[in-house]
Amino acid sequence: MAKKDLNIGIVGYGFMGRTHSNAFLQAPRFFDLPYRPVLKAVCARNTERAKGFAENWGYQSIESDWRTLIERKDIDLIDVASPNDTHAEIAIAAAKAGKMLLCEKPLGRNAAEAKAMLDAVEAAKVPNMVWYNYRRVPALALLKNLLDEGRFGRIFHYRSQFLQDWTISQDLPQGGEGLWRLDSSVSGSGVTGDLLAHNIDMALWLNGPIAEVSAMIETFIKERKHSLTGKMEPVTIDDASSFIGHFRNGSTALFEATRYARGHKALFTLEINGEYASARWDLHDLHRLEFFDHRDEGRLRGWKSIHITDSDHPYMKQWWVPGLQIGYEHTFIHQVADFLTALGKGEEAAPTFRDGLAVDYVTDAVLDSAKNRQWEDVRA
Amino acid sequence: MAKKDLNIGIVGYGFMGRTHSNAFLQAPRFFDLPYRPVLKAVCARNTERAKGFAENWGYQSIESDWRTLIERKDIDLIDVASPNDTHAEIAIAAAKAGKMLLCEKPLGRNAAEAKAMLDAVEAAKVPNMVWYNYRRVPALALLKNLLDEGRFGRIFHYRSQFLQDWTISQDLPQGGEGLWRLDSSVSGSGVTGDLLAHNIDMALWLNGPIAEVSAMIETFIKERKHSLTGKMEPVTIDDASSFIGHFRNGSTALFEATRYARGHKALFTLEINGEYASARWDLHDLHRLEFFDHRDEGRLRGWKSIHITDSDHPYMKQWWVPGLQIGYEHTFIHQVADFLTALGKGEEAAPTFRDGLAVDYVTDAVLDSAKNRQWEDVRA
Amino acid sequence: MAKKDLNIGIVGYGFMGRTHSNAFLQAPRFFDLPYRPVLKAVCARNTERAKGFAENWGYQSIESDWRTLIERKDIDLIDVASPNDTHAEIAIAAAKAGKMLLCEKPLGRNAAEAKAMLDAVEAAKVPNMVWYNYRRVPALALLKNLLDEGRFGRIFHYRSQFLQDWTISQDLPQGGEGLWRLDSSVSGSGVTGDLLAHNIDMALWLNGPIAEVSAMIETFIKERKHSLTGKMEPVTIDDASSFIGHFRNGSTALFEATRYARGHKALFTLEINGEYASARWDLHDLHRLEFFDHRDEGRLRGWKSIHITDSDHPYMKQWWVPGLQIGYEHTFIHQVADFLTALGKGEEAAPTFRDGLAVDYVTDAVLDSAKNRQWEDVRA
Amino acid sequence: MAKKDLNIGIVGYGFMGRTHSNAFLQAPRFFDLPYRPVLKAVCARNTERAKGFAENWGYQSIESDWRTLIERKDIDLIDVASPNDTHAEIAIAAAKAGKMLLCEKPLGRNAAEAKAMLDAVEAAKVPNMVWYNYRRVPALALLKNLLDEGRFGRIFHYRSQFLQDWTISQDLPQGGEGLWRLDSSVSGSGVTGDLLAHNIDMALWLNGPIAEVSAMIETFIKERKHSLTGKMEPVTIDDASSFIGHFRNGSTALFEATRYARGHKALFTLEINGEYASARWDLHDLHRLEFFDHRDEGRLRGWKSIHITDSDHPYMKQWWVPGLQIGYEHTFIHQVADFLTALGKGEEAAPTFRDGLAVDYVTDAVLDSAKNRQWEDVRA
Repeated sequence: MAKKDLNIGIVGYGFMGRTHSNAFLQAPRFFDLPYRPVLKAVCARNTERAKGFAENWGYQSIESDWRTLIERKDIDLIDVASPNDTHAEIAIAAAKAGKMLLCEKPLGRNAAEAKAMLDAVEAAKVPNMVWYNYRRVPALALLKNLLDEGRFGRIFHYRSQFLQDWTISQDLPQGGEGLWRLDSSVSGSGVTGDLLAHNIDMALWLNGPIAEVSAMIETFIKERKHSLTGKMEPVTIDDASSFIGHFRNGSTALFEATRYARGHKALFTLEINGEYASARWDLHDLHRLEFFDHRDEGRLRGWKSIHITDSDHPYMKQWWVPGLQIGYEHTFIHQVADFLTALGKGEEAAPTFRDGLAVDYVTDAVLDSAKNRQWEDVRA
Repeated sequence: MAKKDLNIGIVGYGFMGRTHSNAFLQAPRFFDLPYRPVLKAVCARNTERAKGFAENWGYQSIESDWRTLIERKDIDLIDVASPNDTHAEIAIAAAKAGKMLLCEKPLGRNAAEAKAMLDAVEAAKVPNMVWYNYRRVPALALLKNLLDEGRFGRIFHYRSQFLQDWTISQDLPQGGEGLWRLDSSVSGSGVTGDLLAHNIDMALWLNGPIAEVSAMIETFIKERKHSLTGKMEPVTIDDASSFIGHFRNGSTALFEATRYARGHKALFTLEINGEYASARWDLHDLHRLEFFDHRDEGRLRGWKSIHITDSDHPYMKQWWVPGLQIGYEHTFIHQVADFLTALGKGEEAAPTFRDGLAVDYVTDAVLDSAKNRQWEDVRA
Repeated sequence: MAKKDLNIGIVGYGFMGRTHSNAFLQAPRFFDLPYRPVLKAVCARNTERAKGFAENWGYQSIESDWRTLIERKDIDLIDVASPNDTHAEIAIAAAKAGKMLLCEKPLGRNAAEAKAMLDAVEAAKVPNMVWYNYRRVPALALLKNLLDEGRFGRIFHYRSQFLQDWTISQDLPQGGEGLWRLDSSVSGSGVTGDLLAHNIDMALWLNGPIAEVSAMIETFIKERKHSLTGKMEPVTIDDASSFIGHFRNGSTALFEATRYARGHKALFTLEINGEYASARWDLHDLHRLEFFDHRDEGRLRGWKSIHITDSDHPYMKQWWVPGLQIGYEHTFIHQVADFLTALGKGEEAAPTFRDGLAVDYVTDAVLDSAKNRQWEDVRA
Repeated sequence: MAKKDLNIGIVGYGFMGRTHSNAFLQAPRFFDLPYRPVLKAVCARNTERAKGFAENWGYQSIESDWRTLIERKDIDLIDVASPNDTHAEIAIAAAKAGKMLLCEKPLGRNAAEAKAMLDAVEAAKVPNMVWYNYRRVPALALLKNLLDEGRFGRIFHYRSQFLQDWTISQDLPQGGEGLWRLDSSVSGSGVTGDLLAHNIDMALWLNGPIAEVSAMIETFIKERKHSLTGKMEPVTIDDASSFIGHFRNGSTALFEATRYARGHKALFTLEINGEYASARWDLHDLHRLEFFDHRDEGRLRGWKSIHITDSDHPYMKQWWVPGLQIGYEHTFIHQVADFLTALGKGEEAAPTFRDGLAVDYVTDAVLDSAKNRQWEDVRA
């Protein structure tokens, strides 16, 4: 089949630059897609690094200024994989230049930025997507299907956590090269935008809108040495963030994200309790879905651990054989595959910038509630 | 060794009457104790049932009025195992009559009742204890020891849940025989006093006082047929209760109790995250403690599942041999053993009525916060 | 209900003496039984210990010679809880004296002893039972029901292990007080009779007769100091024992028992694989049954962890409420309850001495096969 | 860095053709390697399929006769990924033609074939490796390191299983396209060569040579319709294979492989018990290593679940960040990386054909023992 080329320009070469690039290369080898991503250019201020990155992943060229990149006629799509403080400016300009847009999450550092980004892509009518990659974990895609089929009945509870422990040491500096997630001027917030945003996007997708929240945030270590200035400075990010709340469907919300939970590396968890069934999942064993069905014969009811590696599980027919697990990177591959498939049909691939904005409305409400010490409604 | 008799009069013959009676009989068979509980009398309005109960457990006599029971000279200790609305009246009268007191949890239907009960036992200077039995799970007694030894360093997070699913059906009646937990005039509250109180007592014991909470409660099914009147009546208890908050030591609190979590029968869970270590536990596998120690060699760090059945684990030397688990009922046996041991030394056995009141201060704050939709300080 | 007394005389006061005595006392409190066990006498050579044991458990008298005990008119049932080398002599004499018999496992030190014991109880027509207690684990009673209902279809595989680690130390003595399990003249064999016998009884009950075996046994530490003589002596017991084989139903057998598996205290495991379903269980979490049903909807197939604490699970209606686990000691309580219930109906309660002999035929075949290094048929 | 090209010619385009091709492409993107694999040609009789495969993976050309392929001057390395009956002929010819060799496992259909293959590569002095990919699971590489460091002390037991359930249906045909694993003339044997070979290679690597075995094999369904002839024919492969035995280091062996274990897709398991420590692992959660260390403080001993995703775990520094798991395909990527690294240093990369032959010696002994119903020594 004659496949069309889709020319990609990526901004950023960090952790996310790697996952995206790998996804662009791998998706067409495992999925039958109408487009073939062509790695046209990587853009980064540090030319040496950009060069090494381009060599490794096979980008045909490098750019040092994203403004130049978005002006290039041979680029169809801009992938924004740079730090959060650059998302809005680049995405808006790229949309104006008529480029399709993929953007790392969170979409903006706050809802105001995200709203401007959404307005730009909608005005420009360009395909757009946010890299909330966990929607493409096969176990969670299966859970979404089960929910859509009405197998859970009325939902009573939804709870979700994202637990890490990598910033506990007093000696960890803040800000600077590779550490921009610790600098709120760059990142917008700490765990709220970095981790809790994942919990929220997943919840909105699986369980619908959140109506209201009562939240608290914590900064356990108040001062850290800045990696660039060498001076002790107040820590401006939140180390932990949690909230109780309500979804619009009447179910309760219980959310927590932290980088101070010893023993947990990237423990994204979720559980949903419905009238007839419950399910739970976590990222440390992402290839499993735990499922409980109350309609099972009484004495044989129990939590079932489903090993999501069969050909009738979402995405898995394209991979290996039953029992052989895939991993983290595959969520990005699936997202590229879905994006390109949708593009071929002229359809949107969620999460779009509109979905990204919905997450930022919740994280804004969380941060406001924590600051104001009161319940806050979530904007819609 | 010549052991002294301790004459017991119990009020109530339900689920808790059984666990307590079993504990009185079993404790001296497995532990070397200064006192031997003698089952003198069981008191209940329903004489037929009281008789059957007495026969089964070996109580020497029955009473149909607790007032008569507490007047009996041959009774040393009154065990209040009747519904919540009777706790205060019985306990206060029994204290005035100079009886030692054991009381089922929650101590009062609210802190006001609990305070009056505490005042009574302190005025009477009688030994007293509340049946927060889970403090005597060997795994949790070990966790308490580890915390007291300072192995966790500064505590960052404490979270705890109590998940059940037995009241989801629309057809479940409220109130009446065996269902008083569904009638708030008897119980005081729903899951807040019944389940969350367990989470809170454990947390206060392990992690110290709670300073403030922001809570919400839910009643998912608003009307149920009353089992006695047969009429549809508004449901007055809370089906679910959750809160965020702070402990006085600066750590965060995340708590939830519900009877609407499909797939969970009595899933009391807790997790504590400290600077150096973390631990977690749940009631469905109560004989295990999960422990993570960051001071382990880096590449070999992980969560350890400790099977709490060794002779160097709390209480376990008295039971079987390594690998052979004990169960739920043993927590009550241990509590009796500890109470009698303390009594022999003239010491208090926690949780005393003072500890029981501390729990009620928190549950009051939870209910107030949920009602007022604002943060509430916990009384101390 | 007027219940008849059943007068018990027990021989032995060790670990098993405790589990049996506890079961005699607890069974009538939780089960509605036609007989009430009365603890008439405990017999042991060491009078001091017998006295302490009698006091603790409420035995009305002590004996120092089992011959006297079995002559007593006021004894209905002899419970043989003494070391293996005494089983045959006591049981045969007691049967001749017309006593009912309960005997600790293994029935004999070998099949020849067991056969003589069986002949004695059958000649005397006295009720008899062997304490293979694990048949009364509720999870395994449920599994037995599921198998009997034909839910597994044709069976392909059965495998079972019993892993311990308590004899690894070079310093452990052999033989002597409390260590008779390490002296083959007393015990008959090492892990084969002590642990593997449990695996085998369970397998015969669940999956039917074993036809043939190819086995090996190991003694890792060849010489140990004897605790009585203080001299280094050859170790005569097997430290590990394993076999492959066939059941008569055509399924394969894979068995292993050892006291040299670091990290395992009493890890009795089993798994059965049938045409339609599989199940597995282990003693470290005895209150759970893992169940897989291939007839479940394809994409939702998985291993289900069933928490065996519901009122529709075998034996559990008599205990607490859903979610609250029981433990090891309860298997003995259930066995007493079943024995007394059967007695009331004039029926046998399995495992009888006939079942005990069947196990000894297999362990004999295992030991022969290991010695002769060839396949051995199992006698029937 | 200027990297040398290494020109690859692959024979076969099936499941293994995909895993190898993916590995050739991915290895240089994540590892710093002295060689860059160049996909020169894929060879298959079916030209249409070869073409599709070449297009998908980027092979520059196709061949329909492996004889032509191995004559090509522009090919440095032949990767044998075709069915088992072709391994020997192709590999021997390719070695004579001076090509480096990678060969799928098992090396030969029996040890005689494997020995001829080993002789050929040793005579030709060409680098060679067998695709026993599981040696490159990071968890198992870590286990190997721990064993080499002496952390386990004397080894007592090693047990390993490979459980599948995909051939239970009576309707499954034998032989033919895509089903050659069911035709013993092609495969050599059933699960013994397909699955048990993996267990054995891993065991030899971790625990050294196996001295002797007593084995049994089963064919549960005796006749199946052949997919090509349409006629019922006797099934010639083994559906299940198990053995007990001894390693040369004195530890016991207990092995089992089957395709008739309901509920298991690809459950490769292993456990090793040493004097000081034990470890276990399974393929369904390949990113975890369970580790027990008896030298831990007594009351805190337990099985630790180590999530093998940290930068100090083997291979993991090259991937993502802690907590984010990799999957099955990565074992092949690691094997390519190790092969190319060794090649750059002029060293061998295990498992070589010599290691492959060692596995075949064991599988031959297993099949002989099962046939002869007696203990068999393993050739060395």
